[in-house]
Amino acid sequence: MRRAAGSLESLRDLMPAFTVFIGTTRTSTIPGITIAGPSPEATLYTPALDVEYLVIGRPVTLNVIPVTPDGIPTPALLSRAALGALKIPVIIVETGSHIKPKIPLVALPSATPGEAINSGRALPRGTARALFEEARLLGLMLGGSLDFVVGESIPAGTTTAMAIMEALGIAAKGRVSSSGPSNPHRLKEMVVNEGIAKAGIERGKSDVFDVIDAVGDPVHISVAGFVAGAVERGSRIVLAGGTQMCSVLAILKRLNVNTSKLIVATTRWIVEDSSSDMLGLVKEISPETQVVASTVSFEGSAYRGLRAYEQGYVKEGVGAGGLLSLLQARGFDEKAIREIVEKEYERLVRGGLSI
Amino acid sequence: MRRAAGSLESLRDLMPAFTVFIGTTRTSTIPGITIAGPSPEATLYTPALDVEYLVIGRPVTLNVIPVTPDGIPTPALLSRAALGALKIPVIIVETGSHIKPKIPLVALPSATPGEAINSGRALPRGTARALFEEARLLGLMLGGSLDFVVGESIPAGTTTAMAIMEALGIAAKGRVSSSGPSNPHRLKEMVVNEGIAKAGIERGKSDVFDVIDAVGDPVHISVAGFVAGAVERGSRIVLAGGTQMCSVLAILKRLNVNTSKLIVATTRWIVEDSSSDMLGLVKEISPETQVVASTVSFEGSAYRGLRAYEQGYVKEGVGAGGLLSLLQARGFDEKAIREIVEKEYERLVRGGLSI
Repeated sequence: MRRAAGSLESLRDLMPAFTVFIGTTRTSTIPGITIAGPSPEATLYTPALDVEYLVIGRPVTLNVIPVTPDGIPTPALLSRAALGALKIPVIIVETGSHIKPKIPLVALPSATPGEAINSGRALPRGTARALFEEARLLGLMLGGSLDFVVGESIPAGTTTAMAIMEALGIAAKGRVSSSGPSNPHRLKEMVVNEGIAKAGIERGKSDVFDVIDAVGDPVHISVAGFVAGAVERGSRIVLAGGTQMCSVLAILKRLNVNTSKLIVATTRWIVEDSSSDMLGLVKEISPETQVVASTVSFEGSAYRGLRAYEQGYVKEGVGAGGLLSLLQARGFDEKAIREIVEKEYERLVRGGLSI
Repeated sequence: MRRAAGSLESLRDLMPAFTVFIGTTRTSTIPGITIAGPSPEATLYTPALDVEYLVIGRPVTLNVIPVTPDGIPTPALLSRAALGALKIPVIIVETGSHIKPKIPLVALPSATPGEAINSGRALPRGTARALFEEARLLGLMLGGSLDFVVGESIPAGTTTAMAIMEALGIAAKGRVSSSGPSNPHRLKEMVVNEGIAKAGIERGKSDVFDVIDAVGDPVHISVAGFVAGAVERGSRIVLAGGTQMCSVLAILKRLNVNTSKLIVATTRWIVEDSSSDMLGLVKEISPETQVVASTVSFEGSAYRGLRAYEQGYVKEGVGAGGLLSLLQARGFDEKAIREIVEKEYERLVRGGLSI
């Protein structure tokens, strides 16, 4: 963990529920843009399989755990292992997915999956504002006595997050993370520029909701709305994610929501990633927001799928970094956490689930 | 409050969220069976309007607060007033409604509105088991550190509850409550008997899920599933409702779920109702389950719509009794509660919402 990341102590006295915001965008089917699924089209299944596996222990829609093309398992593996020890409420929020998970979830009335952002028409006009307001209402309904660790699952989410930041006037080019060890910065930049140009967006000048409708996705605006509502009720919020959460901060700042009590909690794989700039982005967008990171390593793990996390695969997602950080804050040491995760990995392998 | 109802003390140290299970059944459109809406067809709108009003302060689907044909307001008025003081999380669970509320809610994947139970085919075959399992999963997801006050909104719910109990072999004839001051026992009995006969149910001998598919509704089986899951996780549960909750207890007993730590919390209007037998039903079905009731009265209220509650209108619904009981357990006295409710009533009248 770098010097600039804060102390995990700040998470210790939270009374959290874990909320996962899921959605899909056809951006993830652009070949080469993400490895959050075994093939470009299969990425549209990843959020549904992620959350089904997260809460039931096995996916329902298809009998496979989401993996990269190389067979590296979804970060939901870390999240599920952590939840088993944390024993906190789990709430799934569906903001717009091509494939709907077959489990109980909170559906936002305006939930709509996104088109590829290089079209400049990611969402039907007015969707971003509707999702923000509906998610804000959810934050008001759930907020108050409960705190929240807020995770996400949206393949190509770093690309849409980059588009949102660039359109809002933040230099995000070459600074967002990636699910793979080699970050396709050039491709992301092309896709983002094409969308911004087609939509006629003036960087830093367009309305935030227009920006999301043009080059955003359903997830990040919904997370922002939820945070706005829950903060209004006095809840403490942990944004559990990587550079994607920087786009949430950017939206919140533009809407004048107080971000000083938010904490971003992620993994060391994000904070130490030389192909992206999490800490720099947060510092520029919302210097008052604290960033913390789990220090867990799988360097010496017996399992190839877990060692791969140390080689830059996956890095973050489904709130993994936030939940690992919360475990550490509650006194689980790195060894105990590794054992919890390896036990879950073994369960999957023994269960014959293809990972 | 009768001697037989327990002490409100038992609610004091709960850490609850309020969950409302909503659904509709065409049973409520049988003329004369319920006054939970201004007309038989309008009762299908009542749950949607109830929960929209509950969380936003005004209905969205239509600009009217649900009322009886005489203009007596929905018990959601009491629930909203109580929630304003309790400040606890609110979660709406959609189990099958003809009209979907326009707010964020948990949708069960198999949610299906019910047909009239005198058809003997209330739900598509297999729905009851699916709803039970999905709601149980929701209980497992949310349960543990949180406790739950569980309310319902389903017009004609006392009739479907009676059908469930009768089909399970419990003598419920003439013992369920009603939303009106004169309880249409004969009509309910006719409808229930017709459904049971058409479905070929042997009272007390048929499978519990077959019973619900034949003469039940989506709400009661879902509440039972949720309770089963949350109890499994160690949550404490308050069943916030009237005689309908007796059918939930009956389902749970048949499925061997431990009901000894459940509390049923309702209003004095239910416990003191001479046209029904709440305490007797609970004693027969699950003697180990405690019943408590709020003691609040609107006898001397300046408002006709609230005084009507003392004349046997409405009586219970949308968790009203449980939330009023919780307020009392937390030290609000009857006068303070009356003031909170009257303030909400005034807000509605001033806002021009037709009640």
